[in-house]
Amino acid sequence: MQLLKDRILSEGQVLPGNIIKVDGFLNHRVDISLLRAMALEFSTLFDLDGLTAILTIEASGIPLATVCAEEFGVPMIFAKKSKSDNIEGGLYKSDIFSYTYGRKATLLMSQQWLGSDDKVLIVDDFLANGEALRGIVEITNQAGAEILGIGIAIEKGFQPGGQRIRDAGFDLKSLAIIDKADESGIVFRD
Amino acid sequence: MQLLKDRILSEGQVLPGNIIKVDGFLNHRVDISLLRAMALEFSTLFDLDGLTAILTIEASGIPLATVCAEEFGVPMIFAKKSKSDNIEGGLYKSDIFSYTYGRKATLLMSQQWLGSDDKVLIVDDFLANGEALRGIVEITNQAGAEILGIGIAIEKGFQPGGQRIRDAGFDLKSLAIIDKADESGIVFRD
Repeated sequence: MQLLKDRILSEGQVLPGNIIKVDGFLNHRVDISLLRAMALEFSTLFDLDGLTAILTIEASGIPLATVCAEEFGVPMIFAKKSKSDNIEGGLYKSDIFSYTYGRKATLLMSQQWLGSDDKVLIVDDFLANGEALRGIVEITNQAGAEILGIGIAIEKGFQPGGQRIRDAGFDLKSLAIIDKADESGIVFRD
Repeated sequence: MQLLKDRILSEGQVLPGNIIKVDGFLNHRVDISLLRAMALEFSTLFDLDGLTAILTIEASGIPLATVCAEEFGVPMIFAKKSKSDNIEGGLYKSDIFSYTYGRKATLLMSQQWLGSDDKVLIVDDFLANGEALRGIVEITNQAGAEILGIGIAIEKGFQPGGQRIRDAGFDLKSLAIIDKADESGIVFRD
């Protein structure tokens, strides 16, 4: 998606450790009009016939998931990252390792809101090692729901998450795949 | 806002400890069309002349803030709840106590994205003790930004947060204020 690639090139920063910082428009200060364009792009990339929900993981996947849910006329459900007292019993759970925070986390979703009649599109802002995505896929499998597709804003193509998910047979589409990011610049996959 | 009150009465649950569970439409499985109606309601309640950003706190405030930001044509910035390695230096910070999770948390926002030229609307899904709101107000003050208003979906009127914020002189509007919630039912403030 050229609009997203242009924003990454003009506003993104590459930090040591292959960190791509795009928090000026994607995951801290968020440009919602860009997210709306992404949702429209997803509508051309996936067959969403029978879609019942958009799934994502808190926190930075929520803005994109919110816009997609409104665009496609379905609810947005986000997996939570730790147990609050307000979610009693009946939870789908998946343990993941968060590379961003350097620690384990547990993804949680109430069994009340996802079941075997559901057909979902999973969306997230970033895909690198794919741990969060592995967790939400596991939760969706626990629910017996069908995954129609997985839509990602930015995939770090030099990390293994995307390949693993594609090898597992999922319809994964990323709007920008970065194959290289260092002091010499950012290289996108064609 | 009658539409929201109707949803609370039809789908909300009161749990022991005055917990009002509305996660079927507001803060776990989210009905974005309801949030859009809330954003339109906020546009009638506040004078948003010169607005530059919508602020909220991760995670459950993000969907409403996303829709408000798109409705009002400004970016959405969310305060994060703990330090990730991806946010280097230059942070506004506020320590709060999260009653939901029963522990302290630190709200963080990059100084890069909020400054003294900003005029903001703060939004959140819930207001009870008001700790998260106190934190985001403190961060906004650190930035020297102007708070045009504070818009809340559901306020628990029997807890002290709302009164404190109003006493401090802020233009706080809640779309539903619950004055009583127990086994006998939910009572809204007129």
